[in-house]
Amino acid sequence: MTALQQQGAAAKAATYVLATAGTAKKNEALAAIADILAERQAEWLAANAEDVAAAKEAGMRSAMLDRLTLTPERVAGIVDGVRQVAALPDPIGKVDKMETRPNGLIIGRRRVPLGVIAIIFEARPNVTVDAAALCLKSGNVCILRGGKEAIRSNRCVAELMREALRSVGLPEDCISLVQDTSHETANELMHLDGYVDVLIPRGGAGLIRAVAKEASVPVIRTGEGVCHIYIDDEADLDMGARILFNAKCSRPSVCNAVECVLVHRDVAADFWKRALPLLDEKGVELRADPEALEILGTRAIPAAESDWDAEYDDYILAVRTVGGMDEAIAFINAHGTQHSEAIITKNYFKAQHFLDQVDAAAVYVNASTRFTDGGEFGLGAEIGISTQKMHARGPMGLEELTSCKYVIYGEGQVR
Amino acid sequence: MTALQQQGAAAKAATYVLATAGTAKKNEALAAIADILAERQAEWLAANAEDVAAAKEAGMRSAMLDRLTLTPERVAGIVDGVRQVAALPDPIGKVDKMETRPNGLIIGRRRVPLGVIAIIFEARPNVTVDAAALCLKSGNVCILRGGKEAIRSNRCVAELMREALRSVGLPEDCISLVQDTSHETANELMHLDGYVDVLIPRGGAGLIRAVAKEASVPVIRTGEGVCHIYIDDEADLDMGARILFNAKCSRPSVCNAVECVLVHRDVAADFWKRALPLLDEKGVELRADPEALEILGTRAIPAAESDWDAEYDDYILAVRTVGGMDEAIAFINAHGTQHSEAIITKNYFKAQHFLDQVDAAAVYVNASTRFTDGGEFGLGAEIGISTQKMHARGPMGLEELTSCKYVIYGEGQVR
Repeated sequence: MTALQQQGAAAKAATYVLATAGTAKKNEALAAIADILAERQAEWLAANAEDVAAAKEAGMRSAMLDRLTLTPERVAGIVDGVRQVAALPDPIGKVDKMETRPNGLIIGRRRVPLGVIAIIFEARPNVTVDAAALCLKSGNVCILRGGKEAIRSNRCVAELMREALRSVGLPEDCISLVQDTSHETANELMHLDGYVDVLIPRGGAGLIRAVAKEASVPVIRTGEGVCHIYIDDEADLDMGARILFNAKCSRPSVCNAVECVLVHRDVAADFWKRALPLLDEKGVELRADPEALEILGTRAIPAAESDWDAEYDDYILAVRTVGGMDEAIAFINAHGTQHSEAIITKNYFKAQHFLDQVDAAAVYVNASTRFTDGGEFGLGAEIGISTQKMHARGPMGLEELTSCKYVIYGEGQVR
Repeated sequence: MTALQQQGAAAKAATYVLATAGTAKKNEALAAIADILAERQAEWLAANAEDVAAAKEAGMRSAMLDRLTLTPERVAGIVDGVRQVAALPDPIGKVDKMETRPNGLIIGRRRVPLGVIAIIFEARPNVTVDAAALCLKSGNVCILRGGKEAIRSNRCVAELMREALRSVGLPEDCISLVQDTSHETANELMHLDGYVDVLIPRGGAGLIRAVAKEASVPVIRTGEGVCHIYIDDEADLDMGARILFNAKCSRPSVCNAVECVLVHRDVAADFWKRALPLLDEKGVELRADPEALEILGTRAIPAAESDWDAEYDDYILAVRTVGGMDEAIAFINAHGTQHSEAIITKNYFKAQHFLDQVDAAAVYVNASTRFTDGGEFGLGAEIGISTQKMHARGPMGLEELTSCKYVIYGEGQVR
């Protein structure tokens, strides 16, 4: 057995304990984790300072450095997040349908954990704790594999969380960190069939696609977001401009930010009069098709073919002119990542048709795509936003981290 | 584009029509399919007779030949099945939660089809129609890839179904058959990313494992059944014997048949006194561990290590002696396929503990494992029994063939 297989076997063994540990015990563990992270944050901050120093030395870009860096305020936020997860309702054990069949069998469908969830993520130390807390609350054992840049922070915080688990009498292997951050180990994790029930990659589109392609264990694809807003010829153009500005500029690095606006040609000139002053505030770069270029002039540059499938995660926006809603829908279904899509229109029938025909996790009428988020959707928290159709779609909260088990009470029935 | 890619693209295009076709139109199509299969069954029977003749020539075993062969009675049963599917409730369009958020956004979760479902199956002509009907009712486009032995039957019936679709104004590509039955084409189907949303293999364990290992499109594993019955020391032994006999002998070739019985050593001698006369009726072969052999004598043969993981699908039963329930549970979790598992006991606490601790799609107390079935569970029909935890677990009916889409009604909200 390799080290990772041993880790997988230990994780699997822990599932049988955690699956039936009960809400009170899991909440006790979450409280213990929050407490230990707060009390001993100096250790975590010191480990993180080493990571940050090494990353600086290696020439990491400042935006990445910022995401890697922990501060007492950020630690407080993370600790608060753990307490919030503890306060959420426990999805496990809920029987979501139960029936007595004509033969007297009583058949119930009970929510159970998925089992072992592996999470591959990049250099964000907060993910380590967020993901562990959500898995724990939903009765799932997690195997965490973070980026090498955060390995010191992750080792420290994983050890603190394991200590908290021990302190409440749960197996420490309910949470474990892959110690070796080589590509070979990540690859082995993607093939840990029999131990890993679900693998969730969290990070950029490149990571997610690579994992989905390579893995033999079941994968949930999350967070690939090439999102569109369609400005209809019957749109409230002021509202459209405000929504576009919000969806592009409120946080361009996230997956629910808009990457491409589709504008009906009959209202294009009027729309850009309203939208440009807003986008100018943030110096948004526009990459436009020839027809839009005629209106935008030197304010835009010509779009390349690759711009129609690009996830910029930056202050860049692709601009395309369309002749009507059906053209917009066909373009979205061909170029979107089935994440979040919006129409701006005053026309009731077009709104309904857009909701019906666009194939995506979240389809909006007259609202910003930025709302696709577990908190905004009322799930309390999220482990990611699924862009696949199997198992879960859209923001994944605790319920999306469960499976089911039919329990059947008999009295000697045979078939 | 290869022929299969073209077929995939045509299937994908059909999804946008079928997803919003509505219940009445889908039921009209199912009725048209039932009618055309009934009216023109002579064509289908003639094509099948050619398949059967060729299979005989090739030396196909008689059990397989029987499964391949259509008769007017079987056709009538298949046609009746299509009408039953038409009568089931339509899962599509149901909004299973809807909420007005504090910011006024109205967010609903709507059931939508998965999209394109590919089904790889063996030489059972009834599967072609059953699967197509369930997909159609749930708004899913299907690509069917049957075994080469049934290709003439399948070509005929697929063409009849496509004619029925055309007759009601739906795209014929809502149902299509892979014309080429080579392994290369099956392999290509497993990698038809971007066109195939879900792949469901239906057939023996070998087929299913091969598909799950090879495919890059999402797969739902179904029908691997190494099922156990544990006879507790506090069991009603007569009930245990009746249930074991039923679970092994009522239909040994199916996945919910039992393959291994675990017997508490304190009641083993008494239990076998009751069970053997029943199993003798069918001449069930017993493969036993050394301790059971002492009781069973020449009635059994020694079990090999491979017997503890064997899916016989035949009148063969593995027999193992255990010292208690926890040993039985550990053995089941190590050797089962997470399909159907049963305990026979009069002890309330053991019953509850077994239901909690055994990790399987269906866990029974005092009933036969043979009940794991969409019809028996009240789902109306099933496309297979999922033995994985992601997406669906246990019998998969129409609801399990759906995904969801969040629809959001706004009034200009930004975040």
